[in-house]
Amino acid sequence: MSETPDYPHDLSQETVVPVEGLKEFLTKLFVKKGMFAAEARIVVSRLVEADLRGIQSHGCRMVPQYLRAMDDGHIDPRGQVLKITSTPAMAVLDGGRSMGHLAATKGMQLAIEMAKSVGTGTVAVKNSQHFGAASVYTLMAVQAGMIGYCTTNTAHATVAPYGSRSAGTANNAFSWGAPVRSGPPFVLDMAVAVSSWGKIFAEKFYGGEIPPGWAYDANGQPTTEPAAAKVLLPAAGARGYGLAVLSSILAGTLVGGKMPIHKTRGVEAEGSEHFFYVLDLTKFTEPDAYYSEMDKAFADLRALPPAPGFDKVRIPGEMEAERFAQWSVTGIPLHRAPLEQLAELAAKHDLAVPWSV
Amino acid sequence: MSETPDYPHDLSQETVVPVEGLKEFLTKLFVKKGMFAAEARIVVSRLVEADLRGIQSHGCRMVPQYLRAMDDGHIDPRGQVLKITSTPAMAVLDGGRSMGHLAATKGMQLAIEMAKSVGTGTVAVKNSQHFGAASVYTLMAVQAGMIGYCTTNTAHATVAPYGSRSAGTANNAFSWGAPVRSGPPFVLDMAVAVSSWGKIFAEKFYGGEIPPGWAYDANGQPTTEPAAAKVLLPAAGARGYGLAVLSSILAGTLVGGKMPIHKTRGVEAEGSEHFFYVLDLTKFTEPDAYYSEMDKAFADLRALPPAPGFDKVRIPGEMEAERFAQWSVTGIPLHRAPLEQLAELAAKHDLAVPWSV
Repeated sequence: MSETPDYPHDLSQETVVPVEGLKEFLTKLFVKKGMFAAEARIVVSRLVEADLRGIQSHGCRMVPQYLRAMDDGHIDPRGQVLKITSTPAMAVLDGGRSMGHLAATKGMQLAIEMAKSVGTGTVAVKNSQHFGAASVYTLMAVQAGMIGYCTTNTAHATVAPYGSRSAGTANNAFSWGAPVRSGPPFVLDMAVAVSSWGKIFAEKFYGGEIPPGWAYDANGQPTTEPAAAKVLLPAAGARGYGLAVLSSILAGTLVGGKMPIHKTRGVEAEGSEHFFYVLDLTKFTEPDAYYSEMDKAFADLRALPPAPGFDKVRIPGEMEAERFAQWSVTGIPLHRAPLEQLAELAAKHDLAVPWSV
Repeated sequence: MSETPDYPHDLSQETVVPVEGLKEFLTKLFVKKGMFAAEARIVVSRLVEADLRGIQSHGCRMVPQYLRAMDDGHIDPRGQVLKITSTPAMAVLDGGRSMGHLAATKGMQLAIEMAKSVGTGTVAVKNSQHFGAASVYTLMAVQAGMIGYCTTNTAHATVAPYGSRSAGTANNAFSWGAPVRSGPPFVLDMAVAVSSWGKIFAEKFYGGEIPPGWAYDANGQPTTEPAAAKVLLPAAGARGYGLAVLSSILAGTLVGGKMPIHKTRGVEAEGSEHFFYVLDLTKFTEPDAYYSEMDKAFADLRALPPAPGFDKVRIPGEMEAERFAQWSVTGIPLHRAPLEQLAELAAKHDLAVPWSV
């Protein structure tokens, strides 16, 4: 039996950051680096939504890394997203090495528009960059009353194929989302290895260990030290391995990208590809039938008795929706180590941080 | 760390069955039940392909169950598959309670045709029946040089949601396939629980046990007895749970179907829904670029050192392709218990079985 770990969380090591102040601060920071304000706001919306849902590994903690990539010429703050080819049902975009969140937002918007017209929309994006958390894009489809899927290709190989202890594939993420009428929508957001690398790195900040059987170190030996982990195992053996390869096909070779085993550098230097698929359910069925069955089934799932150690049974994405609702009001608890990095950037660019230090 | 179990296999309990003889026998059996010969041949091709790939739980072992469902009026041997609605990119079919393999084959064929035209094709099928192994449909896309996905909804709930020990969702299967130029194609075929029910049932024939931590019995207690297992755990915790719900949306509520928690009977009585999605890669990229990267990456994955206990690193679907190549020549080793059931049906319908008894 394998478990699904949560992100580490320890209020004694965190500072609560107000949401609107954080957005304003990050937008100013990106504008200082040359981004257009309207595009910076789109990127910041995606980043802070990840933080609000508790996916801190893919939220504003990543901003120092993005800014370094701009300095190094890997991310173009004014990169243009262009359509390369299209039919009424699909399109390929070139992300122009802009911020991945921008190219991904445009990709998902286009997929939604096509789905409105012909029932489905598929958009693959090449020549893009790290796009953050996958679920913030499927939520765009959900908010349009549609079913959405997305996946993305990350950098060099860091996950063992099933049957090996050597890195051969990447810890790609994917997300599916589907709308409901009452309660939080269905949102699955998962990495294909036993854990995302973001969660492993977060254990470094928080001083935690990783469970046995998750990772090998640089010498191929099992390790529970977050800092020593170099290769992760795939989730559920052959299944996680298969899903890893799939993501690198859809968000990769399908648009001319390389497979992870042929990438040697981090995601900024290698770039990234994305894949979006949207279904307009009103083209498939009576919306009322869909919504009443979804709402009733999710209520019945929630009413099941919880297993020992659980407070209740949740719908996939419900815990993230609970955090979003709470932290939108209270502010977002973020670990102080990455906040210090953001504060250094603020000082360098003559900006004030929106949290108390 | 979770493992991916293989199907049980023990030559001392099996009889080797010739492929063409098996196909001819099964076709005659379905024709005796009223199917048109041309449609029976399509169904039998899908069934025997599952056997040839080693997915015996979804091969000819299921035929007695299908024939009972015809006797009970749940499967219509001459059910017609009709198009309910369509755009250039998607369609909804009504399976007419025909054999699921027939409705699914027509669904996948239509999705391939649409993908040839607009780059993608999506087909959802309602009012159908158990369709066998998911990968035999994605292989149709692969053989057309396309990327294919399919999933299906099964019967009443038999898998616990993450955080519960009660059944709340179903052990749905899904498959993704993608073509290559050299070697076996990429084919992922997985159930969303720790194991398919077919593998659990096969352990009954073979007298094996199931690993600890996989299943609960009727009283919610952990069990390793295949006959006592009533509820399976989801693969990789919240991930398998999320994937289970997803399949019941795409192949379910999207076309007016019920979620598993609202089904009370087996798959024959409840019927089934399917979902197919096909991408024509030539509409997305230069095929030569796609194929050379795929072939090189798969060769490099295969060249990785195997972990202890493995003879080599395989591409997802490679073991099934190895079995297909071997058993197409030698015949298929099938457990004698289900063969005896088929022999009884043969006697009842005045047909000869193609294996030595």
